[in-house]
Amino acid sequence: MPPRTAPTGRGARRRLETRARLVRAAREIMARKGIGSTSIQEITDTADVGFGSFYNHFDSKEAIAAAVMEEAIESFGAAADRLADTIEDPAEVLAASVRHAVLRAAADEAWAWFLIRTALDRADTLRRGVGRRLARDIRIGLQRRRFKVADPLAATLAAGGAILAIIAGRLHGAIGDDAPERAAAVVLKLLGLPADEARRVAKRPLPSIA
Amino acid sequence: MPPRTAPTGRGARRRLETRARLVRAAREIMARKGIGSTSIQEITDTADVGFGSFYNHFDSKEAIAAAVMEEAIESFGAAADRLADTIEDPAEVLAASVRHAVLRAAADEAWAWFLIRTALDRADTLRRGVGRRLARDIRIGLQRRRFKVADPLAATLAAGGAILAIIAGRLHGAIGDDAPERAAAVVLKLLGLPADEARRVAKRPLPSIA
Repeated sequence: MPPRTAPTGRGARRRLETRARLVRAAREIMARKGIGSTSIQEITDTADVGFGSFYNHFDSKEAIAAAVMEEAIESFGAAADRLADTIEDPAEVLAASVRHAVLRAAADEAWAWFLIRTALDRADTLRRGVGRRLARDIRIGLQRRRFKVADPLAATLAAGGAILAIIAGRLHGAIGDDAPERAAAVVLKLLGLPADEARRVAKRPLPSIA
Repeated sequence: MPPRTAPTGRGARRRLETRARLVRAAREIMARKGIGSTSIQEITDTADVGFGSFYNHFDSKEAIAAAVMEEAIESFGAAADRLADTIEDPAEVLAASVRHAVLRAAADEAWAWFLIRTALDRADTLRRGVGRRLARDIRIGLQRRRFKVADPLAATLAAGGAILAIIAGRLHGAIGDDAPERAAAVVLKLLGLPADEARRVAKRPLPSIA
């Protein structure tokens, strides 16, 4: 959630700093105790912010939990962006991002459910966060003739939906530990790679991300 | 939502009849006034059921609204099933189902959002309702060698997610009136049809469903 206003100057900076302190405190406490057991009082105490000030930034505990999740997804996306620095092949860049997303989802269910529950709700999903990155990586692969699709928009929406559905399947136990590579292979095939090659690229050694 | 218990005999039958009357009344009133403006009292009055009995069947207005939506999705699936009676090609059967789902979504946003918000939440999505039908239609296409995928489970999850994401894109206005055919083409390609053929099959005349 963006700050409610976008003022400038010292007051604005301080406001953003307070908000960041609240989000950082909420992230730490929620990671330790879960959202349900975290109280707003604990968040403001840990952030060293007056209890009442909380409501200048967030309407509810759920709202700050959403901000925590959005930041976690954004920070995942920023880390995944660095894959492109070490991998030449756009198909492998996309495969590595997909694999890391599915791995992260299995390791952090709250993160995964937040992603699933918000991604399709927003009109701007392909213009922000991990959706924007997916659209960009597909565009690069198309420009470099690595991907071949007749309908880039439909293929991009489909790829995003496919990743979400496989993540959900992973969380439900419908698909096993090899879900990351299987998701990457199916997405690459959707983007026009021959099936054999899609599977091969999806299994290349996976560079770690921060 | 299934009845809370599955008793047998006359009492059970009457119980199911009462529940069905409540759902039918809720569907009529909600279709006319929206969920928000519908009261439980109106539903029980229209169904000719005592107010208190409502709670033998549903916890809340939201719970009966969910039952209305589930029935609407089930009845859509049953209607789409009849496509297989008049179409020989399994790829065309699947394309027609996808197109009808996207058309229906654009015509009935409440139905579409319910589908989007519940499909990935459930562990049993591929074993019930429209998810089970999707899995079945893909299986038939594979058996008849019309589809060709290395990983049927991943492809089925991906196809489901792709359809949901394109429906969401349609509701958000990200993709236009030709979304049904574009969704069908991308799903057929995902299932191994060559791109040209996927597009061609996706544009065949669309039989209506009840």
